[in-house]
Amino acid sequence: MSAYGTVLRKRDGEALPPAEIEAFLRGYGEGRVAEHQMAAFLMAVWFNGLTSAELATFVDVMLHSGAVVRLDSVPGIKVDKHSTGGVGDKVSLVLAPLVASLGVPVPMMSGRALGHSGGTLDKLESIPGFRTDLTLGEYRAQVERIGCALIGQTDEIAPLDRRLYALRDATATVESIPLIASSIMSKKLAEGIDALVLDVKAGNGAFVRDVAQAEQLARTMIGIGRAYGRDVVALITAMDRPLGRAAGNAVEVEEAVDTLKGGGPPDLRALTVELAAEMLVLGRVADDLESGRRGARAALDDGCALDKLREIVTAQGGDPRVLDSPRDVLPQARIRRAVMAGRSGVIAAMDVRAIGMACMRLGAGRDSLDGAIDPAVGFLLGRKPGDAVSADEELAVVLGNDEARVAAAAAALRAAIRVEDEAGAPALPLIVKRIAPRAPAS
Amino acid sequence: MSAYGTVLRKRDGEALPPAEIEAFLRGYGEGRVAEHQMAAFLMAVWFNGLTSAELATFVDVMLHSGAVVRLDSVPGIKVDKHSTGGVGDKVSLVLAPLVASLGVPVPMMSGRALGHSGGTLDKLESIPGFRTDLTLGEYRAQVERIGCALIGQTDEIAPLDRRLYALRDATATVESIPLIASSIMSKKLAEGIDALVLDVKAGNGAFVRDVAQAEQLARTMIGIGRAYGRDVVALITAMDRPLGRAAGNAVEVEEAVDTLKGGGPPDLRALTVELAAEMLVLGRVADDLESGRRGARAALDDGCALDKLREIVTAQGGDPRVLDSPRDVLPQARIRRAVMAGRSGVIAAMDVRAIGMACMRLGAGRDSLDGAIDPAVGFLLGRKPGDAVSADEELAVVLGNDEARVAAAAAALRAAIRVEDEAGAPALPLIVKRIAPRAPAS
Repeated sequence: MSAYGTVLRKRDGEALPPAEIEAFLRGYGEGRVAEHQMAAFLMAVWFNGLTSAELATFVDVMLHSGAVVRLDSVPGIKVDKHSTGGVGDKVSLVLAPLVASLGVPVPMMSGRALGHSGGTLDKLESIPGFRTDLTLGEYRAQVERIGCALIGQTDEIAPLDRRLYALRDATATVESIPLIASSIMSKKLAEGIDALVLDVKAGNGAFVRDVAQAEQLARTMIGIGRAYGRDVVALITAMDRPLGRAAGNAVEVEEAVDTLKGGGPPDLRALTVELAAEMLVLGRVADDLESGRRGARAALDDGCALDKLREIVTAQGGDPRVLDSPRDVLPQARIRRAVMAGRSGVIAAMDVRAIGMACMRLGAGRDSLDGAIDPAVGFLLGRKPGDAVSADEELAVVLGNDEARVAAAAAALRAAIRVEDEAGAPALPLIVKRIAPRAPAS
Repeated sequence: MSAYGTVLRKRDGEALPPAEIEAFLRGYGEGRVAEHQMAAFLMAVWFNGLTSAELATFVDVMLHSGAVVRLDSVPGIKVDKHSTGGVGDKVSLVLAPLVASLGVPVPMMSGRALGHSGGTLDKLESIPGFRTDLTLGEYRAQVERIGCALIGQTDEIAPLDRRLYALRDATATVESIPLIASSIMSKKLAEGIDALVLDVKAGNGAFVRDVAQAEQLARTMIGIGRAYGRDVVALITAMDRPLGRAAGNAVEVEEAVDTLKGGGPPDLRALTVELAAEMLVLGRVADDLESGRRGARAALDDGCALDKLREIVTAQGGDPRVLDSPRDVLPQARIRRAVMAGRSGVIAAMDVRAIGMACMRLGAGRDSLDGAIDPAVGFLLGRKPGDAVSADEELAVVLGNDEARVAAAAAALRAAIRVEDEAGAPALPLIVKRIAPRAPAS
């Protein structure tokens, strides 16, 4: 079988036998299939998709291109959450300690900011001393000991996915549902988890904007999980506005700490509670979603979840005082610039991708995987679509360290928030849809 | 403008402004756009095509990536012919001297065999001593002196097309009408011609099999030619059976010489006369097609065209005795194996691509541009679809130098010729259609 023939058949929409997909991917891994052949193949996949059998082989080869962690030594059902990303999504910082504090082991490997989307690892690293680069041995030992570890994907996890992702990123072939699904699931299956909750974002700040497409992505990932005997539940959630108020790194950690103290923005708390309930049911420590929700709320309100984060921060070398007085510990921006409404009206819509890009350019993110980040900078976004505002009101605050960048960010942010006479199309409900392979547990 | 953005917009079916296409192609030429980005772009073009404006820019950048020959020093209207290729197509060997002998300068740059298709250069090089690698200076001087030169595209002609073609060949993006059209026309426009006749093959041995698609390719190339002020006429012709009897290299030269002596297979003579008539009208030495045909037939029958080939062969270092006793001069195969019908019936169809591939594997062609060729080997195909055959009759003859290869070629050839009780679907007429941008001259 030639690489050329594989590209040709995928281009022509033929179903490729598993052995052919496997030989092609392995050939790429071993340097026998050229980058330009893989690029042409990926573009053909963008147009023609992958069959279920092709997808299964794709996942399997990527998964087994590196280490597959076993966490059998950790008692209990290991459950992780994965979000497809967006602006202001600091859920993992609250959710992982929350669920772990209730007895479900959470082995969590997260990603970095890219483009308009933030990344959990960058947020964690704004905590002085916090190490996200544990070895797989340290990771396993920490999950065993305190029930949770928050690390990055090590080089040993799905290295073929990393190479393919970099190629997709250079060739406009990222936004393909089977390619997104196989990339996410090959990494998650390598973590050692038994079950997974997916937070699939929809709306203009999501990678997959359309609700129907988000649902298709969720169902594709659920299918892959089931093929590996993993329970997977997905929530389609709103990313037509930022989640919570803070967008950035240190500011998101601060907001996460507030939420772990029973406060925080209502949407962040509500989404975290819902995802926690799913994880608690999957982890068999809650009988149904409603009792899961009750347990989660209690652990946020009684400091139990906060204590678990303290354990994690301490175990991973971070300064635990971040949980007591975040502003004394986290890097702070020197400039604080209000963004005014300038006219009265209603917030009709937000261009969340533009907000994320403006935040990235301010220094909170990166436009390529090797860019540097300023952990102190970011936005505070007090308003949501549908809110009434008066002309002299603050819509948002830009936190920055460079005058020119702050001015550019303030202008971009203002342009991304549409204030009009009347409300726009209704915003998405926070939780648009729940997708589970079986009847809901409550 | 980023290379990434150009790939993305082409993928999404947007019309790209000329400046963007130009920057992308130049960037590729200068190494700033990676091979994998161009590969993804070409696959996106395979799916989404090129707009007329994009196509025009494509041609222009490829054309001006190298030398553009000027033949102003040669009096008369310079006319060339280009065929999209197939099996047994030795028309150029007859046509170029024929038309030149009637006073129309023919500056012809040809290609090599690739895949199932033969190549004029390889055929010419089976003549001992014949040089196809003239410099552009020698080429111009020869056209000036004797009205015709038969050479290969030098490295100076459209080097960007050569790089793109190699990439397309590795990434299954060859068969795209705008990419084929721009590749052919950028090279032809660089040759110094005033007018061009296109022989666009259709049928199962053609690169574009479907008549409607062949017509689309022809119209695309005519459009490009007109944009550069060149008269272009196209004939859609049959490639659902090999042209003439011989397929290979030396055997095709022998058949071409027969045809230049007034003999040769009727289909080869008829197609050559028709293409010659078009070239004579375009070159303004015939008033209409019918008088062009008469002139062409006369020049074949009275030895005038043969004399012109003698001049060309001599000028390019070849042994002119090839025109007197071809078998004494051309390399001859040691093995001659008949392929028997084995059953009586009618030739219902031929798989011309399979015949071409079998001929290539026998040694007459190459599966990559750097493969070696055995000039002596080939096929003699005495029968056409629709012919009745008896069981003990010879369908074809394999000429080879290696027992195992001859046996394999004989089996493949037999399998590619379908003998059945009744005739199959009607074969294509030799000349399916004439496409000209203006009313036919007769």
